[in-house]
Amino acid sequence: MSKSIFYHAGCPVCVSAEQDILNLINPAAVEVVNLDVEKSRIPEAQKAGLKSVPALVTPNGNVLHINFGASMADVIG
Amino acid sequence: MSKSIFYHAGCPVCVSAEQDILNLINPAAVEVVNLDVEKSRIPEAQKAGLKSVPALVTPNGNVLHINFGASMADVIG
Repeated sequence: MSKSIFYHAGCPVCVSAEQDILNLINPAAVEVVNLDVEKSRIPEAQKAGLKSVPALVTPNGNVLHINFGASMADVIG
Repeated sequence: MSKSIFYHAGCPVCVSAEQDILNLINPAAVEVVNLDVEKSRIPEAQKAGLKSVPALVTPNGNVLHINFGASMADVIG
């Protein structure tokens, strides 16, 4: 089974959403990426269609934007 | 284990998010409520903190607003 990827940027909204997501989904099925730490993965996140963080990219490539922590423009900045 | 509740209102964004959520979370652990059909449950959804649909209310009471389909004002209207 391919993994979902949860992108966040360390903001309070992100951390809260991360805990909720990891409680609901099998943690082994989710890769968590902090874009504030792993800036090299920002282009990959943008290519996946991320407009804001936190967001969950599902195995079939859909992007679920969750609540609203920060726009990608703020993450890049 | 108490259930999560996924509230939606039948809009295309909602239906797409519902499929993604049900693929990720054990469907037996999620109750799906279409507020456009079950209007009597709108007060309960508002009390839980819903500002827009689709949204997932976790077992611990947190509200994850997913993407953006419609504001609660539109659902009530």
